[in-house]
Amino acid sequence: MDILCRCINSCFVLSHGIRGGSEIYLVLEGGDCAPKTVRIEGSSVRYLNPDERSTASLIRNACLKKIPASREVVSSPGVFVSARGFADVLSDLDGKGTFVYLREDGADIRGYGFPEDPIFVLGDNQDLEPEEEDLLLARNPDRIRVGPVSLHADHCMVLVNNEMDRAGAE
Amino acid sequence: MDILCRCINSCFVLSHGIRGGSEIYLVLEGGDCAPKTVRIEGSSVRYLNPDERSTASLIRNACLKKIPASREVVSSPGVFVSARGFADVLSDLDGKGTFVYLREDGADIRGYGFPEDPIFVLGDNQDLEPEEEDLLLARNPDRIRVGPVSLHADHCMVLVNNEMDRAGAE
Repeated sequence: MDILCRCINSCFVLSHGIRGGSEIYLVLEGGDCAPKTVRIEGSSVRYLNPDERSTASLIRNACLKKIPASREVVSSPGVFVSARGFADVLSDLDGKGTFVYLREDGADIRGYGFPEDPIFVLGDNQDLEPEEEDLLLARNPDRIRVGPVSLHADHCMVLVNNEMDRAGAE
Repeated sequence: MDILCRCINSCFVLSHGIRGGSEIYLVLEGGDCAPKTVRIEGSSVRYLNPDERSTASLIRNACLKKIPASREVVSSPGVFVSARGFADVLSDLDGKGTFVYLREDGADIRGYGFPEDPIFVLGDNQDLEPEEEDLLLARNPDRIRVGPVSLHADHCMVLVNNEMDRAGAE
């Protein structure tokens, strides 16, 4: 859970505000009621603070929500939950952007030409399962890495946001 | 407290290990028993996990320690606490490296030639107090920024580490 909270922080939290153009999908494939996907929209999320504890509450409340099999429901403003797994989420995102796979053997992010709507995919503290990776690779994603050292997912996301900030500022 | 925990995480935590060459000074200038400085050495720290909660325990235990006025004491392996404030810490670090002040109006970190022993100084969620800044500026620090957007201290530290990783990997 704690790595997910830190990822949400890295995805959205600025010194003075929230990254309104960002969106995160937390695909939870473990536990009794898996799969579940918690989606957070930067443009509408509320009650999002930098600390892990309050963010954990947002996720926990979302996971406790009763979910119809067929659709996504609102858990709190800007936080949505559904019974989707990794394959479903990829399918839903098909056509909505370019998949970008964060891997240590990818091309250096510096010099990467960001597509208009990048959809970054990365594992938490574990790599994607082979079946999950196959589903992603079938979509021919770009592959990038953030640096020479292996980092946790939340730190990778800070580096990706910085690179996009720089690309946007040019 | 939570921002300090995230800073410790950013300073030390790698995907598979700890940055043994890093060291952090948390200068606590608020609260009943301020000033206090908690120093953590990457080379010897133990019981450091990525989550905020366990890191908060390390800091809390350090702060509860009875401290003689004149010296630093061990709180747990690799964690030290003293009654030093910002001015004392700067004095102790004089001659041990080059002060590098992280500021939004600094030079871009990309292209910065890192000194051999950089000592990065940054505020938490607040800037340094004017008197603190004066003490630092009197040491003629280099001034750098990590990107075009204002970020929390812990995210800045991820970016600094990445830049140093890249400089070291070249």
